[in-house]
Amino acid sequence: MKDTMTYAFPDLTRLFDPQSIAVVGASDKPHSIGNHAMINIVQHSSFGGRLYPVNPKQDQVMGLDCYPDVASLPEPVDVIIVVIPARGVRAAVEQAGAMGVKFAVILTSGFSEADDWGRAEEAALVEISQRTGIRLYGPNCPGLVNLSVPLGMTFSPAFKDDLTPGPIGLATQGGGLGRNMLQHGDRGVGIACWSSSGNECDLQVADFVHHMADDPDVKVIGCLIEGFKDGARFAAACRHAAEMGKPVVGLKVGRSDYGARAAQSHTASITGSAEVNSAMFRQLGVIEVHDLDELVDVAQLLARKLPSGDEKIAVFASSGGAASLCADNVGASDLELSEFTPETLARLGEVLPDYAAIDNPIDTTSISISHPEAYGQALLAAATDANTGLVLAPLPMDYGSYTEHNAGLLAEVQAQTDIPVVPIWMSERTGAGYKVLADAGLVPFRSLRNMGLAVRRWIDHGKWRAARDVGWAPLVAVTGSEPLPDTTRTLTEAEGKRALAAAGVTVSAPEVAATADEAARIAARIGAPLAMKIVSAQIAHKSDIGGVMLNVAPGEAARAFDVIMSNARAARPDATLDGVLLEPMAPDGGLEAFVGVARDPVFGPVMTFGLGGIYVEVFRDVTRRVLPVTGDMARQMMDELTCAPLLQGARGQAPRDLEALADLIVAVSDYVAAHPEVVELDLNPVWVGASGQGARALDAVIVVAA
Amino acid sequence: MKDTMTYAFPDLTRLFDPQSIAVVGASDKPHSIGNHAMINIVQHSSFGGRLYPVNPKQDQVMGLDCYPDVASLPEPVDVIIVVIPARGVRAAVEQAGAMGVKFAVILTSGFSEADDWGRAEEAALVEISQRTGIRLYGPNCPGLVNLSVPLGMTFSPAFKDDLTPGPIGLATQGGGLGRNMLQHGDRGVGIACWSSSGNECDLQVADFVHHMADDPDVKVIGCLIEGFKDGARFAAACRHAAEMGKPVVGLKVGRSDYGARAAQSHTASITGSAEVNSAMFRQLGVIEVHDLDELVDVAQLLARKLPSGDEKIAVFASSGGAASLCADNVGASDLELSEFTPETLARLGEVLPDYAAIDNPIDTTSISISHPEAYGQALLAAATDANTGLVLAPLPMDYGSYTEHNAGLLAEVQAQTDIPVVPIWMSERTGAGYKVLADAGLVPFRSLRNMGLAVRRWIDHGKWRAARDVGWAPLVAVTGSEPLPDTTRTLTEAEGKRALAAAGVTVSAPEVAATADEAARIAARIGAPLAMKIVSAQIAHKSDIGGVMLNVAPGEAARAFDVIMSNARAARPDATLDGVLLEPMAPDGGLEAFVGVARDPVFGPVMTFGLGGIYVEVFRDVTRRVLPVTGDMARQMMDELTCAPLLQGARGQAPRDLEALADLIVAVSDYVAAHPEVVELDLNPVWVGASGQGARALDAVIVVAA
Repeated sequence: MKDTMTYAFPDLTRLFDPQSIAVVGASDKPHSIGNHAMINIVQHSSFGGRLYPVNPKQDQVMGLDCYPDVASLPEPVDVIIVVIPARGVRAAVEQAGAMGVKFAVILTSGFSEADDWGRAEEAALVEISQRTGIRLYGPNCPGLVNLSVPLGMTFSPAFKDDLTPGPIGLATQGGGLGRNMLQHGDRGVGIACWSSSGNECDLQVADFVHHMADDPDVKVIGCLIEGFKDGARFAAACRHAAEMGKPVVGLKVGRSDYGARAAQSHTASITGSAEVNSAMFRQLGVIEVHDLDELVDVAQLLARKLPSGDEKIAVFASSGGAASLCADNVGASDLELSEFTPETLARLGEVLPDYAAIDNPIDTTSISISHPEAYGQALLAAATDANTGLVLAPLPMDYGSYTEHNAGLLAEVQAQTDIPVVPIWMSERTGAGYKVLADAGLVPFRSLRNMGLAVRRWIDHGKWRAARDVGWAPLVAVTGSEPLPDTTRTLTEAEGKRALAAAGVTVSAPEVAATADEAARIAARIGAPLAMKIVSAQIAHKSDIGGVMLNVAPGEAARAFDVIMSNARAARPDATLDGVLLEPMAPDGGLEAFVGVARDPVFGPVMTFGLGGIYVEVFRDVTRRVLPVTGDMARQMMDELTCAPLLQGARGQAPRDLEALADLIVAVSDYVAAHPEVVELDLNPVWVGASGQGARALDAVIVVAA
Repeated sequence: MKDTMTYAFPDLTRLFDPQSIAVVGASDKPHSIGNHAMINIVQHSSFGGRLYPVNPKQDQVMGLDCYPDVASLPEPVDVIIVVIPARGVRAAVEQAGAMGVKFAVILTSGFSEADDWGRAEEAALVEISQRTGIRLYGPNCPGLVNLSVPLGMTFSPAFKDDLTPGPIGLATQGGGLGRNMLQHGDRGVGIACWSSSGNECDLQVADFVHHMADDPDVKVIGCLIEGFKDGARFAAACRHAAEMGKPVVGLKVGRSDYGARAAQSHTASITGSAEVNSAMFRQLGVIEVHDLDELVDVAQLLARKLPSGDEKIAVFASSGGAASLCADNVGASDLELSEFTPETLARLGEVLPDYAAIDNPIDTTSISISHPEAYGQALLAAATDANTGLVLAPLPMDYGSYTEHNAGLLAEVQAQTDIPVVPIWMSERTGAGYKVLADAGLVPFRSLRNMGLAVRRWIDHGKWRAARDVGWAPLVAVTGSEPLPDTTRTLTEAEGKRALAAAGVTVSAPEVAATADEAARIAARIGAPLAMKIVSAQIAHKSDIGGVMLNVAPGEAARAFDVIMSNARAARPDATLDGVLLEPMAPDGGLEAFVGVARDPVFGPVMTFGLGGIYVEVFRDVTRRVLPVTGDMARQMMDELTCAPLLQGARGQAPRDLEALADLIVAVSDYVAAHPEVVELDLNPVWVGASGQGARALDAVIVVAA
């Protein structure tokens, strides 16, 4: 297994900010990609380094001396940008690797995404990389853009249209969706850099996230992931970002089977399970979003201000309907309106007319048009209120010059406070006022729904940060995953429980009787009602074949032995029967939980925890953690269940022994971490007694590599 | 109680399309509202009728002869538009009513929304209306707009900017939010008419919905409601719309307490409970939405095509990322991708390159740019596929002229098929291609999220229509609500059960013993384990004071009687004890349900149904219906619960007696309908036996008007 603690990440400084570049396939031929790539550097970038066109058919490209091949270059450049057809790429990269070029940005398509030849050729590129040390970006990608310079290592004719620099680092795989986010420059969202790494034969999203975490121009990192090449590497990069205090916002395709299948065929990466991905994101503090506009909304708000997690909200509207609907969305998003201080209320009463609403939400009424100076004064009062952490200004319609004027006031007030003043431009029509807001960096949300989602995630991230600061949710050390073994075997319950007990997991203490007489002797020694179950490596679902009897009186144990053995023999004449297991029944009144671990193809072992029976089967009330699970995390999991009140002692019942349950969960996590041969583990049920009574696994199914 | 079946709705033809109008307060003074109101009719409308300015201070306004007051008008006009200050409104309306004017559109503010004087004045206007027959629109509103003419009876200077006519009728209360929706004209959404009825002292949203249901220019009705004046009237109007085959899309403020409070103070209407409102909307087939863009998205899609409810979806993209992410959202929204016919697949294979993805989702790859004709051919194949009911075309970025060209192809293909071809314009940048789509009526969605919400609601409405056609969900006859009585009393369990039994509700048959001897005799007759409970009008929570014993053996009944009576006497020396109730215990293994009815301030009696205990307390797994509830509706309610599998017999248990449970629910509904004195009713638990064993209420709390 790999461990995120040990990952070494490459230094990508000279990839994002090279001092020398060669464009392999540079051309003067209009509309060729070799021409576009050159134009983007020469005309639309501010590249101050040395630029070498490479093309055997031209002496010069755009007035620069041209080299016939990479080997002829006068220096080992930081980056070669490769835009020649696929059949020539291997030779160019081989020459570059040999001469000590640091990076090859391979835009060319026709590799692993295309056919068998392409897959073999891509494998050959990887071999060159590993042999020579040249690091590869792509292939099959639109390139790399660093807007802080600006520098566009891309053939995209759209590069010149989206040059708004800013605090967001963007790491995507495909190109089309990334371009979408650059076009948010029109509402004032600036991008520091954008990697779009295509087939990711070498460098991958994780490497760019790690680099951006160290890039002083980047305040927030946005990731758009269709599939992971290496889940643990991604986790390690996100952990580094968290350590650097930079939020990561992630959109992962694959919430539904349709998406997972399409992404898998598009990127040949592993999509993994959506539930596990969400759990991993939460553990790493990666803010999960589900659409592109949402990614931008959340990232830009985080870039404006890092939240504390207890921000209260002021709603500042100039129509009663907008005030009501916005406040309604605040509540429906589980956000809190602020209680204005007496000073704020007094000031609002002073500057607004009697018929205005001054308590949160504020409705200035049409004085926003008739007395804009009062509108500005009231806004300033709300935005400097001591109890307010964010001001929402819903603007339901574009009212031309009036809106433009008010937009200017919003910008003026924002300049006087450090809490975000956030307009919600609800109209389809984006007039001059919209541009004022975008230019001033107020980045309007485009709907109340988007506002609710983004502000909710913003504040949740503040809570996560605060909890992390007090050590509540340590950053995980993902160990990653190995391919599942081809053959496995299932331990018998007795074997499994012995293994668990040895690892410190509290299990019911079973004894195995090989004969009816032995069962009677064991039962007499236990001297309490018994659970009895068939022991056979071939029988997994014991109760289905009459292999389980509960609440057996000790005096009936011998007879019960015979019944269970007969049932099993009749149902499964093929099975080897090792006897019958006996253990004392758990006391009445316990809750039944279940604890399971399975291996996720992306993130490795993942624990699922919930209460048993209908809670899982009907309500699907479970929570998950990528291992390892600490005691704090175990208690978090208990709190996260909808049925948490049952654990805490709802409905007049005693609270459960949560400490014992947490100990059991941690012991299971440790056991799986120490036993890489464990493929799957299910403790169902885990009996959880009242406080002080303990918790123990009553059944255990453990599948190991054979 | 009021009954929707008996509502008479006014004929509003001459309000929406008047042949004569007087503007009371018309003026030539620049920027006055009297001037704006005139300009909107004279310059920006196509009003072919007679227009009379009324103003004692001018001889002419905009070249038209002016009248000093309403009484001097040469004819009783269809509509007076009132823009004079509040103090003069009553006299104008009085004169108008006296001379037979049909409608007064009162734009003036300063009535019930302002102060006590305004409230009294508004009441006086209502009195005039009731006395003379003149119907009132407003006051405190921006007016009424009929874009099918067009005619703007409004002082809004923005009227002239939003004149895109179309199939949507819009009924709002406040003005600002309605204007928002008119500005969606910029993406091709057309509005037939817009009522914005302010204080609704007379005519209300329900009246406009009813009118629009009969308006041939309206195909879909959108409502934005801050509070109801009369819930049953709204229900009646929606029922009429459904009968006319016109979908109603509704946004109701008040999902959260913040919104409910703000709306209540803004409109002085009753907001009611969000849960009941949602239940009522579902029953009426009103499609509930939560934001303005969503209202427009859903309404326009319904206007393009009424769904059957089983539409499958084709995703047509030109980037792999967009195809994956869109397909992912389709799945995450619980929508289904279509399986293309062999003919469609063959055609797609013919026109698209090998490296394109032709199975749903389609990724044409960059041939959308290099070979747009193939893009168009492939799109036509998808849009004419026999298994496809809607085509989604996600466009992640604005690629200038390329996107414009592809937009034209989308429009061309839409002209050749009657299934909706729906672009999703995901970029912030709306270029020429966006305008092509808007102008062609393809109304782009602005995000995948919005698409998922709208298409989901569109298809759900198809299902509702289909079910209604086969009588599955009859349109409800809401009886409305009366104010709750000031004083109430609670029936004893015995009284309550007798009343229910008389009404045909199956209840456990209790007998009441006044003495221990009598208890023994009754127990001997029953001859089975007993439930015994104290009977006292003053004791509601019987088990809290030791007033309940379960599973009492018949021979122990006398002793149990004494214990219960002693407990009750000790705990509540003030209470009158009528004895102890005895009934046979319900057989083991039954499920416990609960059936409650409460009176909603807007929609009258509402039933809440769920399984008891943790299902309600922890998971809040309940469903609601505004009464009356039919047998079909009762079965629907059972299906809607998350824990429905428990009723149907999950986890190896026998299916429950759902017929008996449905009968009980219907009988309860009938009982409450027949007893307007019942304020609240709770049957908890209702025992539900296995199939054939029946269902019966084991406890009953009924609160009636005293």
